[in-house]
Amino acid sequence: MKKRVGVLLSGCGVFDGSEIHEAVLSLLMLDRAGAESICMAPDMDQFNVINHITKSVMDEKRNVLVESARIARGKIKDLKNINASDLDALIMPGGLGAANNLSDFAAKGSEASVHPEVARLLQEMVSAGKPVGAICISPAILAKALSDKKPEVTIGNNPDTASAITAMGGEHVTCAVGKICVDKKNKLVTTPAYMLGPGIKDVAAGIEKLVNQVLSMTP
Amino acid sequence: MKKRVGVLLSGCGVFDGSEIHEAVLSLLMLDRAGAESICMAPDMDQFNVINHITKSVMDEKRNVLVESARIARGKIKDLKNINASDLDALIMPGGLGAANNLSDFAAKGSEASVHPEVARLLQEMVSAGKPVGAICISPAILAKALSDKKPEVTIGNNPDTASAITAMGGEHVTCAVGKICVDKKNKLVTTPAYMLGPGIKDVAAGIEKLVNQVLSMTP
Repeated sequence: MKKRVGVLLSGCGVFDGSEIHEAVLSLLMLDRAGAESICMAPDMDQFNVINHITKSVMDEKRNVLVESARIARGKIKDLKNINASDLDALIMPGGLGAANNLSDFAAKGSEASVHPEVARLLQEMVSAGKPVGAICISPAILAKALSDKKPEVTIGNNPDTASAITAMGGEHVTCAVGKICVDKKNKLVTTPAYMLGPGIKDVAAGIEKLVNQVLSMTP
Repeated sequence: MKKRVGVLLSGCGVFDGSEIHEAVLSLLMLDRAGAESICMAPDMDQFNVINHITKSVMDEKRNVLVESARIARGKIKDLKNINASDLDALIMPGGLGAANNLSDFAAKGSEASVHPEVARLLQEMVSAGKPVGAICISPAILAKALSDKKPEVTIGNNPDTASAITAMGGEHVTCAVGKICVDKKNKLVTTPAYMLGPGIKDVAAGIEKLVNQVLSMTP
């Protein structure tokens, strides 16, 4: 039996959805490790739609689940229908969708709230002793949703973001792009990815380590 | 000096743009090989916009260059401003954008025409003795745009698509997903990728070989 690993998406594009490289690299490393990826996203309007050339807001509405399906090649599930019992592990790529759709961390910082279905699944996973990997800015969601567990995470070395994580109840650890931060108690694995860059091969090295660490911690 | 490799995109999503996994894997393998990726796309409306869950046409207009920028993290050039002298090599990922935006091969088969800027750049590259890699369905574009050179390409083993390639003036070679077809005379390298699947790790194996072969043939 292959291990079933949820990949929680938040749209399709670094500035208003999932960071595409981080999402695809997660799928690649999971497939190479012999795991099955189960892509999922919430069925909701995106916070905004950004023109990725000009970085300006476009006068459009797009749906997070529908756009995420582009990364998943059409094979995607509505987050609300997924429980921890469906999964052996969960991975959350980064991108501004994590901070604008799955939470409002981009707008509210340490006062952020997390999408209720995201918070529910994260709490279920930790309660079941199942590992969660979070990439780039997504560890901020762990800090908020699991604040009662004092999660130890990294977003790289950005002092403002690290302070917000501490203010939400997390512990921040400085980490290089090709490395991972492991919270053994809570089975959380995080890597900075494009919070630091500089290039896709560097991001890939961190995500490969994250995926293998997450898979090693499954019950 | 890093080798400069154009990555010609056609939107963002397998059913109406560039196949995202193939595009990202091209960028990964190029970065790992020490090459610089120069993403580009034509500035034009997409042929259509497809809901990637239902596969139905959405009542929307999207621009190929703007959507391609999602894969490129904002760093993208308008195809019309790129000449062969700007590049050491060119790579074309697949996806239905190649067959609906960069050409009309999906609708017209062997009667297809190729977007004039795409045809221009391909002819310039071959005239300059610079290699071109084409992935998935994109080799059909080579067959049409370079038909006077009898290009030898693969799209895997689909008999109808192979026949259309032959009818356009190409030669089709059957090829497995993790392998490449090399036309040494014209410096063309092709791999079936998601024309065959079955998974991202298999597609990655073929694209890694394609990228390394393309780089080995640069002048």
